[in-house]
Amino acid sequence: MFPNSFMFGASLSGFQFEMGNPNDPSELDTQTDWFVWVRDLENLLNGIVSGDLPESGAGYWKSYEKIHQLAVDFGMDTLRIGIEWSRIFPSSTREIPFGEGMLEKLDSIANKDAVEHYRKIMEDMKSKGLKVFVNLNHFTLPLWLHDPLAVRKGKPTDKLGWVSDDAPVEFAKYAEYIAWKFGDIVDYWSSMNEPHVVAQLGYFQILAGFPPSYFNPEWYIKSLRNEATAHNLTYDAIKRHTDKPVGVIYSFTWYDTLKPNNSEIFENAMWLANWNFMDQVKDKVDYIGVNYYTRAMIDKLPKPIEIQDFELNWYVVRGYGYACQEGGFALSGRPASEFGWEIYPEGLYYLLKAIYERYNKPLIVTENGIADQNDKYRAQVLISHLYAVEKAMNEGVDVRGYLHWSIVDNYEWAKGYSKRFGLAYTDFEKKLYIPRPSMYVFREIAKTRSIDQFKGYDPYGLMKF
Amino acid sequence: MFPNSFMFGASLSGFQFEMGNPNDPSELDTQTDWFVWVRDLENLLNGIVSGDLPESGAGYWKSYEKIHQLAVDFGMDTLRIGIEWSRIFPSSTREIPFGEGMLEKLDSIANKDAVEHYRKIMEDMKSKGLKVFVNLNHFTLPLWLHDPLAVRKGKPTDKLGWVSDDAPVEFAKYAEYIAWKFGDIVDYWSSMNEPHVVAQLGYFQILAGFPPSYFNPEWYIKSLRNEATAHNLTYDAIKRHTDKPVGVIYSFTWYDTLKPNNSEIFENAMWLANWNFMDQVKDKVDYIGVNYYTRAMIDKLPKPIEIQDFELNWYVVRGYGYACQEGGFALSGRPASEFGWEIYPEGLYYLLKAIYERYNKPLIVTENGIADQNDKYRAQVLISHLYAVEKAMNEGVDVRGYLHWSIVDNYEWAKGYSKRFGLAYTDFEKKLYIPRPSMYVFREIAKTRSIDQFKGYDPYGLMKF
Amino acid sequence: MFPNSFMFGASLSGFQFEMGNPNDPSELDTQTDWFVWVRDLENLLNGIVSGDLPESGAGYWKSYEKIHQLAVDFGMDTLRIGIEWSRIFPSSTREIPFGEGMLEKLDSIANKDAVEHYRKIMEDMKSKGLKVFVNLNHFTLPLWLHDPLAVRKGKPTDKLGWVSDDAPVEFAKYAEYIAWKFGDIVDYWSSMNEPHVVAQLGYFQILAGFPPSYFNPEWYIKSLRNEATAHNLTYDAIKRHTDKPVGVIYSFTWYDTLKPNNSEIFENAMWLANWNFMDQVKDKVDYIGVNYYTRAMIDKLPKPIEIQDFELNWYVVRGYGYACQEGGFALSGRPASEFGWEIYPEGLYYLLKAIYERYNKPLIVTENGIADQNDKYRAQVLISHLYAVEKAMNEGVDVRGYLHWSIVDNYEWAKGYSKRFGLAYTDFEKKLYIPRPSMYVFREIAKTRSIDQFKGYDPYGLMKF
Amino acid sequence: MFPNSFMFGASLSGFQFEMGNPNDPSELDTQTDWFVWVRDLENLLNGIVSGDLPESGAGYWKSYEKIHQLAVDFGMDTLRIGIEWSRIFPSSTREIPFGEGMLEKLDSIANKDAVEHYRKIMEDMKSKGLKVFVNLNHFTLPLWLHDPLAVRKGKPTDKLGWVSDDAPVEFAKYAEYIAWKFGDIVDYWSSMNEPHVVAQLGYFQILAGFPPSYFNPEWYIKSLRNEATAHNLTYDAIKRHTDKPVGVIYSFTWYDTLKPNNSEIFENAMWLANWNFMDQVKDKVDYIGVNYYTRAMIDKLPKPIEIQDFELNWYVVRGYGYACQEGGFALSGRPASEFGWEIYPEGLYYLLKAIYERYNKPLIVTENGIADQNDKYRAQVLISHLYAVEKAMNEGVDVRGYLHWSIVDNYEWAKGYSKRFGLAYTDFEKKLYIPRPSMYVFREIAKTRSIDQFKGYDPYGLMKF
Repeated sequence: MFPNSFMFGASLSGFQFEMGNPNDPSELDTQTDWFVWVRDLENLLNGIVSGDLPESGAGYWKSYEKIHQLAVDFGMDTLRIGIEWSRIFPSSTREIPFGEGMLEKLDSIANKDAVEHYRKIMEDMKSKGLKVFVNLNHFTLPLWLHDPLAVRKGKPTDKLGWVSDDAPVEFAKYAEYIAWKFGDIVDYWSSMNEPHVVAQLGYFQILAGFPPSYFNPEWYIKSLRNEATAHNLTYDAIKRHTDKPVGVIYSFTWYDTLKPNNSEIFENAMWLANWNFMDQVKDKVDYIGVNYYTRAMIDKLPKPIEIQDFELNWYVVRGYGYACQEGGFALSGRPASEFGWEIYPEGLYYLLKAIYERYNKPLIVTENGIADQNDKYRAQVLISHLYAVEKAMNEGVDVRGYLHWSIVDNYEWAKGYSKRFGLAYTDFEKKLYIPRPSMYVFREIAKTRSIDQFKGYDPYGLMKF
Repeated sequence: MFPNSFMFGASLSGFQFEMGNPNDPSELDTQTDWFVWVRDLENLLNGIVSGDLPESGAGYWKSYEKIHQLAVDFGMDTLRIGIEWSRIFPSSTREIPFGEGMLEKLDSIANKDAVEHYRKIMEDMKSKGLKVFVNLNHFTLPLWLHDPLAVRKGKPTDKLGWVSDDAPVEFAKYAEYIAWKFGDIVDYWSSMNEPHVVAQLGYFQILAGFPPSYFNPEWYIKSLRNEATAHNLTYDAIKRHTDKPVGVIYSFTWYDTLKPNNSEIFENAMWLANWNFMDQVKDKVDYIGVNYYTRAMIDKLPKPIEIQDFELNWYVVRGYGYACQEGGFALSGRPASEFGWEIYPEGLYYLLKAIYERYNKPLIVTENGIADQNDKYRAQVLISHLYAVEKAMNEGVDVRGYLHWSIVDNYEWAKGYSKRFGLAYTDFEKKLYIPRPSMYVFREIAKTRSIDQFKGYDPYGLMKF
Repeated sequence: MFPNSFMFGASLSGFQFEMGNPNDPSELDTQTDWFVWVRDLENLLNGIVSGDLPESGAGYWKSYEKIHQLAVDFGMDTLRIGIEWSRIFPSSTREIPFGEGMLEKLDSIANKDAVEHYRKIMEDMKSKGLKVFVNLNHFTLPLWLHDPLAVRKGKPTDKLGWVSDDAPVEFAKYAEYIAWKFGDIVDYWSSMNEPHVVAQLGYFQILAGFPPSYFNPEWYIKSLRNEATAHNLTYDAIKRHTDKPVGVIYSFTWYDTLKPNNSEIFENAMWLANWNFMDQVKDKVDYIGVNYYTRAMIDKLPKPIEIQDFELNWYVVRGYGYACQEGGFALSGRPASEFGWEIYPEGLYYLLKAIYERYNKPLIVTENGIADQNDKYRAQVLISHLYAVEKAMNEGVDVRGYLHWSIVDNYEWAKGYSKRFGLAYTDFEKKLYIPRPSMYVFREIAKTRSIDQFKGYDPYGLMKF
Repeated sequence: MFPNSFMFGASLSGFQFEMGNPNDPSELDTQTDWFVWVRDLENLLNGIVSGDLPESGAGYWKSYEKIHQLAVDFGMDTLRIGIEWSRIFPSSTREIPFGEGMLEKLDSIANKDAVEHYRKIMEDMKSKGLKVFVNLNHFTLPLWLHDPLAVRKGKPTDKLGWVSDDAPVEFAKYAEYIAWKFGDIVDYWSSMNEPHVVAQLGYFQILAGFPPSYFNPEWYIKSLRNEATAHNLTYDAIKRHTDKPVGVIYSFTWYDTLKPNNSEIFENAMWLANWNFMDQVKDKVDYIGVNYYTRAMIDKLPKPIEIQDFELNWYVVRGYGYACQEGGFALSGRPASEFGWEIYPEGLYYLLKAIYERYNKPLIVTENGIADQNDKYRAQVLISHLYAVEKAMNEGVDVRGYLHWSIVDNYEWAKGYSKRFGLAYTDFEKKLYIPRPSMYVFREIAKTRSIDQFKGYDPYGLMKF
């Protein structure tokens, strides 16, 4: 049983959900690195991006009322949304010094239409009884701060994204401006989503199609550190305008070792992927947002690799976790999603325990879900991951809510529209949101605040832990 | 939209559902051909039967109240159940002449415990608001009428099952006795389930593991004729005791031809599989029960085969309909069930139209469902087949209800417990019935009497007709 | 290295190779059980047989010179051929008593054309330098001795095949007649091929499509005993006319146990499948012909099954040996043939050792090969099984030759022409025999009498024992 | 039948075959771009290269005598080998002006050990009766001319490889030096191997793991033009020292269009991939070396892409040609190699016809083969592609020889040792070269100068054109 205060809801982001009409300039988010990235010739010709374009998407910018109603109809009490930095500040804020008088100056160059539109969205949420959970950054950066095409080609530029020395303070300006504008209406604040993913796929594992796909281990470390600094500045900035909870959303990965109990590589991997960033921000979070999809299976590297002052001593074993065949099965026998991600709910349980033990902060599951166009596995994913949450809660972990990724289908970055995470199937052409069968299971759970009625049926053996 | 009078429910049978405890003699149905058949050495050693035993099953005999409640909780208003001939008359009725005084004599040798138990079952249904739909014969025959092991080995015997000359009249005795006993409580009567399957798999396509698996085209024809005679006698016999609707349940197959519009083989196949029997009984049915699972794809035989006075001019093409790989895909691209049956809802639509046109009787879908342990396809099967029903109704076909096969998992004849058709997963050991996710979809449909909310999401393209 | 005396050759049989022209009555072998069996309606309609007919086959009856030349061209020095009992005695010999004067009486009813034709075949072999290896019976029985359709249907008949009490003596008549006629020209004699297969698939494992597919464990035992008696009579009968070696050809199976070293079930299986028959004939063989294709993996049966006085305590585990997916891979990782037979050469090595230890007779590998239309594995099968032979010889086992099954493609019983075992691809229509690439490997081995040049390349890991 | 003058042989290259012992500095070819490229951290961490290293290879540098003998033993009369530019000139030749006195100056800085070693290799070929076919450049460039790591990162450098303005003349110096040194012994000269592949995979399709994997359409065009200039200079340079034939080796691709006869995209693709380069060099070739592996299937791009002055109007359709699943099957039903390359011999036939028609020069098939570790398809590849050659010759095309890729397994660039193209399996550790079964087929063909004996057996339907 989940307590009445436990939030059931879904998470969205800006870039992946907002746009829906390529012919309506008022809703296009053109001043952001990803907007440029997904239409670059090099990316297109090499299949680095899908060719799908974000402006043909779910259309939340215009259809937010429908999607809010859908959430309410299916038992949700919270929605997490994103604000797009580049919508608010399409041109540079670098000229405006941080500090006294900054907010007014920012206001003079901010895009007021965007500010007002976001307020309408939030007011509609409030009017329908939904809690407003706002995340300030979800991968995308304004073009004036990040020119990924120049970076990739090694051209001289000061638009280095999170590698730029001034990126943290620029972010803090934006964040404080938003807090100043929306401090009265937002219930939960998050500075950013999955900072480690941005750094890792941008500068280290460069074949995932993330900008700038420029291998540079130093920058991997540096961008992550700048993101931490940005968060810490942001925490204080927001707190100057509201006393609502402020946190960060992080994609945690659980690590299993191929040879059992190989604690040497386990600790090394957990530190690099999870604790390295979180330790840097742990004093500036009121809660921790936990995104969880699957684990990684690792084994020892014969020869460790030096990355600046860090010694990487492991590598990822194919056939488990994120490294399975799309739509196939993991070597563990568990099914893999259409993204090739093993369904592995115990990883969420292990992580909730480990994170809570290390930081002793309230936790919110801010993302969890599956790319599953045909809804073959989604109901079992829901049930088994809530089983993991419940189990952790029964053992004392303070989990405050579960936000599914996502309520409707969305634009999955370099993969475009081929990976469908929605509880509701989305007809992108007609902007229809049709609940998949699993969404009725979500409703049943949210209404009864319980998964007990599902527990005896576990066709994939996902609740045997 | 389905009208309020439209029945939503499920179908069960006796042998496949009743037994649940091998150690309780009171519930064992030992005097029936299938009970012997599934434990025969020849069958076991050659894998002709699964090795699973029916007495470890769902346990409806003892747990009927739980299953009735489950039906009610999930929006059902009707359950079809079976009565086991061999439970009522474990020993031969051949000595008792048909006619005057017969019922009392039958009563003197009937198993009163069984009679009373079936009444308790029906009374419980009534008390929960469920319509009582009774089918008198579902494949199994009493051992005193059918010794399949002797038949298969060519041993002289008068226990030839439906090939016996006196089978029709023996059946009519049993039927009239049941009508006499239960005429007051039953809402819908059916003489028998899928007579053609019994004849076809018993004497013609003998590798399906059905008793007696004895190839004999003459007997195939004869047994089918005897079943028709039995039905006709039964209709009159029941009508002497009640004016409730009496019908027959038939497994209709839709035929598509590999070369388009090959009407020569289409007519030939439709007649042999569907019309041959139905034409013989069409004047003695108040409704027709339509069981539907999938189609058959056929092509022309180079040289027709003579079966008595019939010329078979087609053969079944593998890769479609019933002839797909288990858990794979049909050559049409549609998924196949764990039984290897293509999901093909338009076949139901075509059949409802064709049956109604030929016989102009009310129709009830008395079986439809899928072997789908993991519930990957069941929700889409439900929606798409109800779409077929609705479409036929919109075009004037008089369909009165939809009974899903089945509410819980059951004993699937020669395949044992490996094929799971239940809306509710069944833990055979603990006698737990846990609704699969698709059962919540069933509930939604039954409550709203509509599938409109599901129509836009058709991941397998099943509603494009 | 194989000594100069070591025979390299191939094996053929009568029924599977001789016929080639359905329109030439002079070559049709119509008076045999298999000729009737493969065109029976029950078999055809149920897919028990393939529908292919033996009279469209390789046409050895007419094209023997071409096939003999092919053998010589590719380094063979021996061919094993079969004589068809039903060709020599198309009508019953039962009226002619065994003993004095028998040969002349048999001669008066024998088919002289057939006798002469077989002599021409053998003379052509001799003229080309090929050793004549004759096997007297290969599965098929004259219709006057075996009516499989009557047997299967349980009809009273005295044509019970090997179950008939007089089968052994009838066989001995036939055998002595052949020895009398061909004693001057034959180099190696075998009474029969794979007697256990005939008994096992005829009466015990009845789904393989072998006549009469009539389950009867007693007959399984009895037919095997009669075959042993027939062999023993035959040995003496032949020896009255020649002093050339007389033996029997047996399909040996190697057994591995799922749980290692499970000697209880190992001994039980080895006895039933191998030693039971061989022990009965061991004093009447000058050599033992070893047919080998693959192993069986077995595990313990929870409850042993009584077959007369024998307790069967094991069952075959799927995924190994004969029980793999066609064209797939065994659970051991080794490839499986188009018949679903694991490639497992160590089984041949183990068997040669075990047979030689038990009987201390010269051994000849009389069959070994693979159903491999596309020649993907045949070269490796050749090399690895000859590696097994060489290894056994190096350890003292007296192996005298290796006869591949087969030189050309053939009629594979119930499977028809779909399983192709030929070193030479056979165009059945044009009667062309085109060496597959592996046949050049055979030639290389036969010419050099060595497999050393192939040893370092073992892509499937077949020579790691 | 192939005439006696028709060459049967194999092709090798320097970098992929020479090295074999990482501990012997005398054989390491360290001053080349690929040597650095395959051990770069970015490449290794991202799986852009295999991790295999070229110095653990076939060891031709030391074992050339064994490999030459193998060639002779299996009927070859010609071997194509490569000379490594960076072995001859490990340091820059840029300071030496082209023209008078150049050869002596080059001689003063050339690596004499390498020069002498190559001569020994050629002398051994001659002594065994093998024709010496020398190719001067096969992908690799000296580090002093190409720094791929700097290029990829956009760092300023004058080591731009073929993009450098002086690359053609530097190449011509090297070429003339070699002609001066080896003009007396070489029978066939080729300037370079597959210039288009170097340009295309280096600057346009950058995910194949070829240096520098730096997307730049202008450089794609420019590098190709420089290669053409280099060839033309080289032709004259060589001709100053010998009158033996000089040509170029090109990897031709055949294009099929998804919609039949789409000549618009067909011509566009054929020009870009084949004629663009060849037209530039057609007056300076005595023969054209044709490398052929498979086709590409193309369809029309909705919107053409501008690449400088060229309009690309097509894209490659997956499931055919080079774009199949590794070890799977093409959508045409033909098998695909372990590289995912469809076996498509008619493409070679079409190309030979088209090339000969356009240029009217003698052709030599300088590469053809398959990545096929287990030798499942290689024999059929050999036969069917020689069938294509024979068919073209019968229709008047002047083809002078067939050099298989390759005689032994080799280092397959970014794929390392996982793709095995050898007629002889190579045990890289022990430097053993063991003929695969298909090599016996090669020998049979080379000895009989005919493929007629194989024609009737075409299990994959590769000779139906």
